[in-house]
Amino acid sequence: MLPVNIKKQGVLFMNINKNYQNVSESYLFSTVAKKVNEFAAANPNKKIIRLGIGDVTLPLCKAVVDAIKSAADEMGIKETFRGYGPEQGYDFLKTKLQDYYKSHNIELDLDEIFISDGAKSDLGNILDLFDVNNTVLVPDPVYPVYVDTNVMAGRKVVYVNANADNDFLPLPPSDVKADIIYLCSPNNPTGAVYNKEQLKAWVDYANVNHAVILFDSAYECFITDENLPRSIFEIEGAKTCAIEFCSLSKTAGFTGTRCGYTVVPKTLEFDGVKLNKMWLRRQTTKFNGVPYIIQRGAEAVFTPIGQKEIQENLSYYKENAKIISETLKKHNIWHIGGKHSPYIWLRCPNNMTSWEFFDYLLENVQIVGTPGSGFGNNGEGYFRLTSFGSRENTIEACERLDKFLG
Amino acid sequence: MLPVNIKKQGVLFMNINKNYQNVSESYLFSTVAKKVNEFAAANPNKKIIRLGIGDVTLPLCKAVVDAIKSAADEMGIKETFRGYGPEQGYDFLKTKLQDYYKSHNIELDLDEIFISDGAKSDLGNILDLFDVNNTVLVPDPVYPVYVDTNVMAGRKVVYVNANADNDFLPLPPSDVKADIIYLCSPNNPTGAVYNKEQLKAWVDYANVNHAVILFDSAYECFITDENLPRSIFEIEGAKTCAIEFCSLSKTAGFTGTRCGYTVVPKTLEFDGVKLNKMWLRRQTTKFNGVPYIIQRGAEAVFTPIGQKEIQENLSYYKENAKIISETLKKHNIWHIGGKHSPYIWLRCPNNMTSWEFFDYLLENVQIVGTPGSGFGNNGEGYFRLTSFGSRENTIEACERLDKFLG
Repeated sequence: MLPVNIKKQGVLFMNINKNYQNVSESYLFSTVAKKVNEFAAANPNKKIIRLGIGDVTLPLCKAVVDAIKSAADEMGIKETFRGYGPEQGYDFLKTKLQDYYKSHNIELDLDEIFISDGAKSDLGNILDLFDVNNTVLVPDPVYPVYVDTNVMAGRKVVYVNANADNDFLPLPPSDVKADIIYLCSPNNPTGAVYNKEQLKAWVDYANVNHAVILFDSAYECFITDENLPRSIFEIEGAKTCAIEFCSLSKTAGFTGTRCGYTVVPKTLEFDGVKLNKMWLRRQTTKFNGVPYIIQRGAEAVFTPIGQKEIQENLSYYKENAKIISETLKKHNIWHIGGKHSPYIWLRCPNNMTSWEFFDYLLENVQIVGTPGSGFGNNGEGYFRLTSFGSRENTIEACERLDKFLG
Repeated sequence: MLPVNIKKQGVLFMNINKNYQNVSESYLFSTVAKKVNEFAAANPNKKIIRLGIGDVTLPLCKAVVDAIKSAADEMGIKETFRGYGPEQGYDFLKTKLQDYYKSHNIELDLDEIFISDGAKSDLGNILDLFDVNNTVLVPDPVYPVYVDTNVMAGRKVVYVNANADNDFLPLPPSDVKADIIYLCSPNNPTGAVYNKEQLKAWVDYANVNHAVILFDSAYECFITDENLPRSIFEIEGAKTCAIEFCSLSKTAGFTGTRCGYTVVPKTLEFDGVKLNKMWLRRQTTKFNGVPYIIQRGAEAVFTPIGQKEIQENLSYYKENAKIISETLKKHNIWHIGGKHSPYIWLRCPNNMTSWEFFDYLLENVQIVGTPGSGFGNNGEGYFRLTSFGSRENTIEACERLDKFLG
C-alpha cells in the first residue's frame, strides 16, 4: 500500500506547541560552572569553596535506608511482592502524613493527600487542571519553574515585587486580578518566611477573587519558630483556595530518592468543579505512583527514630546557616533568611551587581555563591549563599570572608 | 489590609480546564470487581480463578533486589550519597539501553534516551509538546489512556478500526489526515503484533503526512520471532516520525517499582523544531528524574545474570499463555495474541456479547476475564484473558474450560 498525502487545509505539519519557543534559556548555573572552571584552571593551587549548592549533601538516615532495603526484600518474594499500587500513594504513607499535619493542628482526609515523586513534578503537572486563559501571579525573584511551566502552556504571567522594602515578602496587589498565585515560604531563593497575618492576606485575596494559591512548602522543615506557619492550611480559609506542595527532598535528603506530597482539599472548587476530583483523575490517567520501595523509605521518615535522625541533619544545616549569618552580621551586610531556611539572601556590598559580587568573591576568597539576578529582575544586587556545604568548608569560607572584609 | 475584589471583565472565577468534563468515566474494572464480589458472596465455596489480571505477579529477580539494596547502602554513606541526578537519567542506565537497542541493530545516541518512571507517565506527558489543534488517531479497541489524555487537553480523537478482518492490526487510513498516531505492538488489549511491512506502511504514512507516531512497545519483551519488530526504529524512516515508549513493568516485573524509557530521535523535527530538544526542556522543567536506587535496579535487568533471571519469568508467563491458547484452539474458539504477548484476545462463542460471556464464565466455571467492550466499540463480542496468573491456576482454569466446553 502506498501512503497517501492527505493535506488538511492550510496545515501541513503536525502542530507543535509553539509556546515552548517563548521559554527563556537559563544560563545561570552553566555560567557559574564556566566561571568556576576557568578560575580553577588558572589557579590550580587555590581551594574553591562552594556555598551555592542547592542540593543536600548529608546521606539518607539509617531508618530510611533500612526501610528501603527491607521493602526491596519484600519485592523479591512472591508472597510479599507488590505490583501496581494506588496512583495517589499507599495509605501507610498517607496516614503518616495525616498525623504529621495533625501535629500542626491541621485535619486532612486521607484522600486529600497525594503522594508524588517530588514538588517540582506536581507544581508543573497541576497546571493540567487550569485553562490557558488565566493570569498567573508570581513574586520576583522566584524559583524559575513557576514561570517556565506557565510560559510553556501559553499563560500570561505577571509579577509582584519582592524587595528590601517588603523584606522580600510581597502582599497581594490591589490592582491586579490574578487567577493562579504562586507562593513559596520559606522562600527559594530568599529564605524569607511569611507570618500568619501575611499569609491570611493572600488567602483572603484568593477567596475574594476566586483565585487559587499554589503553595510551595518544600522548606517547611527549616522553620523553628512555632508562630510561623509551616503549612498554608494553618490559615483560616485556605482550604477553599489553596493547594500545597511539599517534598522530602530537603526534609530528609530525598533529592535523589524522589518523594513528595500534594494536598488538594476537597472543599476547593471553582465554578462547581472540585479540584481534588480533577487531580485524582489527572494522576490516575497520567501517573502510576511512586515506587513502593521509596514509599516505605518515606514512611520511615515519620517514625520516631526517623524524625530523630532527620532532625540531626536539619540541625547541621541550620548551624551552617547561623555561622554564615553571624559572619554577615558582623560586617553589617544586609541579609535575610538563614534562620528558618537553608538559604541566606544578602545585599551585595558597595552597590556591586550580583555578577560583580560573584567575581569578587571568587577572585578574592574563592567562595562560590549564586547571583541573585538569576532569579529575576528584583534579584539584581543580591546574592544567595546556602547552608548545604560541609561544616568545615562553611567555617573556612566564613573565616576567609571575615578576614577579607575585616 | 482588606482584600480587594478586582473583577476581570466577564470572568469571575479562575478558569478550570473544562475538557476534563469530557473525559468519560470507565466502569470496566469496577464493574468486574463488583460482579466478582457479588458472586463470591453468594457462592462462598466456589474457587474463583482470575485470568483478567493486567499486572505481573512474579517477584523482582534477585539481581534487581541486590542492586537496589546495594544502592540504598550507597545512599546512606556520605561519600557515595547522591542528590539530584540528571532529569533524563543516569548514563550508567542509558548506556545499558543503548546496548540493548544495539543488540536489535538500532543505533541510538545517549541523549536520544530518556529514563522515565514508566510508559504511562511519558505517554501522557509527551502531549505537552503538541498543540491542541491536532487530529489524534487511535486504533479501536485501545488502551484507554491514549484517548483520555487527549480528551483532557481538548484534542480531536478519531479512530481506525481494528477487527477480525484485519487481525486487529489496522493499516493507515486513506481518508484521514492524522497528526498524532498511537500504535501499540504487541498490543494491549489484543496481543496482536505488527510485522515489519505493516509498520513500514505506518512510518511511510507518517512521514508523507508529517505526522508523529507515538509507539508503545511496553510488551516488546514477549516477542520471540526474530522477524517481528520489537522497536519501531527497526523500520527505515522511523527516526523522522516516531517516539518510542517502553517500560520495565512487564519486562522485569517493575509495575510497582516504576522505571521505563522513552526514545526521542534527534532527527525528529516538525516545522524546523526538534522534539528531542523540546522533550529535554519539558523533562528538566517538570520532572526530577527516577530515583537513583531504582535506576540501579533497572541497570541490573540488563546484566547477563539479570537477563537470565527475567527470561525465566517471561518464559513462565509465555507458557501460561500457550496453555490458554491451546485450550481455546482445541475448542475452535477464534483468538489472537498469546504467542508474543501476555494477552489472549478471543471471540466470545455463540455470538455472546462481552459481558454475557463474562457472566457465563463466572457462573459456570468461575473464571474471571476482561470484557473486550471495555476497550472500545470494536471490542464488543471479544474477551481478554491474561497469562499473569499462577501456573496452577492457569492449568486449573483451562481444565475447567475444557471440561465445560467439551
